[in-house]
Amino acid sequence: MIREIPMENVRLNDSFLSPYYRLVCDAVLPYQWDALNDLVEGADKSRCLENIRVAAGLSEGEFHGFLFQDSDAAKWLEAVAYCLQNGGAKEWEARADEVIGLIAKAQRPDGYFNTYFQLTAPERRLTNLHEAHELYCLGHFIEAAAAYEKATGKRELLEIVRRYADLIDSLFGHGEGKRRGCPGHQEIELALVKLYEATRERKYLDLAKFFLDVRGTEPNTFAEEYKARDGFSEWSKRKEPMPADYSYNQAHKPVREQTEAVGHAVRAVYMYTGMAEVGRLTQDESLVNACCVLFEDICRQLYITGGIGSTNHGEAFTFAYDLPNEINYSETCASIGLMYFAHSLLKTEARAVYADVMERALYNTVLAGLGTDGESYLYVNPMEVWPEASEKNPARAHVKARRQKWHHCA
Amino acid sequence: MIREIPMENVRLNDSFLSPYYRLVCDAVLPYQWDALNDLVEGADKSRCLENIRVAAGLSEGEFHGFLFQDSDAAKWLEAVAYCLQNGGAKEWEARADEVIGLIAKAQRPDGYFNTYFQLTAPERRLTNLHEAHELYCLGHFIEAAAAYEKATGKRELLEIVRRYADLIDSLFGHGEGKRRGCPGHQEIELALVKLYEATRERKYLDLAKFFLDVRGTEPNTFAEEYKARDGFSEWSKRKEPMPADYSYNQAHKPVREQTEAVGHAVRAVYMYTGMAEVGRLTQDESLVNACCVLFEDICRQLYITGGIGSTNHGEAFTFAYDLPNEINYSETCASIGLMYFAHSLLKTEARAVYADVMERALYNTVLAGLGTDGESYLYVNPMEVWPEASEKNPARAHVKARRQKWHHCA
Repeated sequence: MIREIPMENVRLNDSFLSPYYRLVCDAVLPYQWDALNDLVEGADKSRCLENIRVAAGLSEGEFHGFLFQDSDAAKWLEAVAYCLQNGGAKEWEARADEVIGLIAKAQRPDGYFNTYFQLTAPERRLTNLHEAHELYCLGHFIEAAAAYEKATGKRELLEIVRRYADLIDSLFGHGEGKRRGCPGHQEIELALVKLYEATRERKYLDLAKFFLDVRGTEPNTFAEEYKARDGFSEWSKRKEPMPADYSYNQAHKPVREQTEAVGHAVRAVYMYTGMAEVGRLTQDESLVNACCVLFEDICRQLYITGGIGSTNHGEAFTFAYDLPNEINYSETCASIGLMYFAHSLLKTEARAVYADVMERALYNTVLAGLGTDGESYLYVNPMEVWPEASEKNPARAHVKARRQKWHHCA
Repeated sequence: MIREIPMENVRLNDSFLSPYYRLVCDAVLPYQWDALNDLVEGADKSRCLENIRVAAGLSEGEFHGFLFQDSDAAKWLEAVAYCLQNGGAKEWEARADEVIGLIAKAQRPDGYFNTYFQLTAPERRLTNLHEAHELYCLGHFIEAAAAYEKATGKRELLEIVRRYADLIDSLFGHGEGKRRGCPGHQEIELALVKLYEATRERKYLDLAKFFLDVRGTEPNTFAEEYKARDGFSEWSKRKEPMPADYSYNQAHKPVREQTEAVGHAVRAVYMYTGMAEVGRLTQDESLVNACCVLFEDICRQLYITGGIGSTNHGEAFTFAYDLPNEINYSETCASIGLMYFAHSLLKTEARAVYADVMERALYNTVLAGLGTDGESYLYVNPMEVWPEASEKNPARAHVKARRQKWHHCA
């Protein structure tokens, strides 16, 4: 049995990582607060917090942003929590409580909380898990809630996400009257494990396992949803063709039968992390074994920088040893997810390769994602940047020649 | 003044090109006849001739294929004509006459001929020059007609295309009651020059000049068409967003002001050929000068194989010295068009570089497009082919690892 040192018991006192910790506390949290409040001049607008204010009835306006715009607030709260856990960022606790208060006001009486659907199409909520990212957003709020409770002892956000998770649990699962379904963008799986660990309520672990078990089984839940909504796309707001298969979402076959890392890289490593966690906690060897096979395949699709996702087409994996230098994607988020996955595997078995991959990703792609000013970001991490080509060759348009102040999709 | 030896006065007697000539006469013409009649097993279906039979009332069925499916018949007829001009392929003359007879039957009384619109949407004919390729198809039939008349003295096809060209001339131009307009896929410009040369009727040269003169001037004719049809796309059959600009069609500025080769490579070199021809025949120095500048820019975007089009995104040019090896497009047709362009420039000035570029394209990309069996084809000519990557990396899906029996878009 491998034991971790809980993060709240760790203090960084080195000369390399400590400055990053201080950077997050002192520069990133305030800068991102401004970004989420649309106060950064020249940056893509977020409207993230304004959406929540509107949903809470405290402001008037229309929804703005992506279907998953809420998740930026969750990630900011989570960052505040980790800073607090390690003794910093005290001055941001009040702001975080304020945001949590907003969310409490915006949450529906039955526990539902998603500003996109609340403000634009409440009648379509939870009907299109394939496209609509509701469970993805909930997952990120769960992660934030667990971290915030650990940092502060405050339970309000944890109670908010529990009510929402209980709503989901009442609708989806094996039981009678419940629906088959799973998210198009994985994240809820690993988050429900954290909720289980924070509450010791077994039902959350069971729900995580359900989402993994149902995925990629026939009839495919995404295909069933597609038929039920007659192909209507929440993205384009019109009928779209049915995908040829669901490998983009890692739902082309049951998760235990998957042997190659395919599809959208962030979704993949989030799911694999959930598989490793559920596998470890339920002693499900078939899940853990699938993770080991998938991890080995990732190592064959891994850049020397810890980047994954060889193509911008679908921000996706391609196949073993396909590592182009100038058109790869290697999204920062994907390397973060890879660290999660390797970290989860490290809890199942003390193999050096897991720590090696974590370090490789951390010291290169993950840290590179954030400028040392705390105010500039890289979304993708190609091996080669030719500024003129980024501008004039559409195959390289995803490669930005400069850091961005903020990302429309953050 | 530079004089060409007319092609019909040339006989090939060498050991390298002669076999290609015999291959076209003996293998390519019969094979493509079968392809156009859907008789090649395992090949993409064409239905090209069947569409014409249906439009002629000789068969029943629905239109099949691309908006420009007719043009394949034109290209086959043109190939027969060139073979005949040099003394071969006698046995195909009767078949060619048969196809011409079909076209005569399918042609509308006012001269119009385009099976796509005749069979699916006659009410929308000639309203969407941006997308619908009608003038492109007419251009290819004109080229076939001029070549066939030269080879056989038979004028039936020439009369067919004249009637159609006269209809176009009655609708588009500077004169009162005529419309501004130009084609989304250039070709008619260079073809009208051939029609002028075959008939000595000045109006066809003037019409070619009109299409070049109006292109890229404000208000942009494509934008006007777009508004008039409320964004309806002939391709998707629904409303589509308006393009940000028309550089893909080389209509982003007046042709004489263009200094960089941009957009869809085949359209570009077809247009430049028309510009060089019209410039030479009308002593329009501004047109010829623009061609010289554009040719120099092409030389900066030219692969060592004579390939052009560095990206599959829009089958397009990118910018000077951007010559990726594994994702370039270098469409066979683009290199053919480049030969046309260089050939036309060679008629204006005896510069070795024009002949060099023609040879570079001919001996590499153009000849490579056709397998030595006459029955297999390459659409794109990348510098690097990795079969597994073509299959599994969508950024390289346009690169086929094997020759194709036929192309859906031939």
